[in-house]
Amino acid sequence: MKKSLGPKTLAYPLPAYLIGTYDLNGRANIMTAAWAGIACSEPPCLAVGIRAGRLTHESIIKNQAFTVNFPNSSQAAIVDFAGLVSGRQRDKFAEAGLTAVDSALVKAPYVAECPVVAECRLYKSLELGSHTLFVGEILDIKADEGLESPNGGLDLAKVDPLVFNSGGQYHKVGSGVGQGFSIGKALIKK
Amino acid sequence: MKKSLGPKTLAYPLPAYLIGTYDLNGRANIMTAAWAGIACSEPPCLAVGIRAGRLTHESIIKNQAFTVNFPNSSQAAIVDFAGLVSGRQRDKFAEAGLTAVDSALVKAPYVAECPVVAECRLYKSLELGSHTLFVGEILDIKADEGLESPNGGLDLAKVDPLVFNSGGQYHKVGSGVGQGFSIGKALIKK
Repeated sequence: MKKSLGPKTLAYPLPAYLIGTYDLNGRANIMTAAWAGIACSEPPCLAVGIRAGRLTHESIIKNQAFTVNFPNSSQAAIVDFAGLVSGRQRDKFAEAGLTAVDSALVKAPYVAECPVVAECRLYKSLELGSHTLFVGEILDIKADEGLESPNGGLDLAKVDPLVFNSGGQYHKVGSGVGQGFSIGKALIKK
Repeated sequence: MKKSLGPKTLAYPLPAYLIGTYDLNGRANIMTAAWAGIACSEPPCLAVGIRAGRLTHESIIKNQAFTVNFPNSSQAAIVDFAGLVSGRQRDKFAEAGLTAVDSALVKAPYVAECPVVAECRLYKSLELGSHTLFVGEILDIKADEGLESPNGGLDLAKVDPLVFNSGGQYHKVGSGVGQGFSIGKALIKK
């Protein structure tokens, strides 16, 4: 029997991404976003919900671009910091000891210290209420050298992604429980 | 120095949700979705990208509703199964041994066996290319009894969420690395 918790923004798991933009004065800024996910395969798109009034909201509209930076688990304090303060008052890159790299593809900076980043041009947007859903077309994924898996792609243990919990804690990704597009085959009735 | 991987649908972490709908004949169906995330706070919204042509795509449009079911890590094989086969040929609830519960709030079934579920009415949608982004307004979150944390909310260890990896493996959520809205305070310069 299930218990009603009411209408809430709750989902498992949640990400904790750093969204990189240039503000109206051209200064590099980041914000933390948990309201986000992949949205489409062709073109590859990432959607990020950002509250109207946030500096990043106006920055995305001005530059029609943003980056999505995937932190590793050792960067939880930086991610938390970037969600606690505003780029209107703070130089978050400088205070967090991060390096802004100018994207050659879009008018936005990415975070050199994050193991994997996505460079996105603003593709579509949708007003939802408190938040605008910005859909970015992923023009490129960039990853640190040495993260490759022997089987192709990236090695999850080396990427060491950060996971956010609806309860408010940051976590590492834990042990594997099965191979996708494989473990479900046993359930297919002949 | 970062290496370019090209335009890819890659993000860390990814979810693996079960989307519940009634098909055009009123039969309960589920599909697996990793292209999804929270999109807005007021109203609380979840966005799910679904490929045109999928049974779930037409079912959402017909019923203007869907559920999002958050599996636990022991349900990885079921989640994988639901992504391997189509509800056009299969009764996925029956084959996976799942129970469809009729939502009292929306015209969609939820999965009794998933620890936490969200009942969504279709709020807005956006055509992106291969996928339509369906934005559901969360009318209620329902959770199994006994999942509560002593501090309020749900206990992550009891929910035991399933995480999907861009490389194709299912994982558990791992060890905690800090408290949100807290560990970042140490980085704020006075």
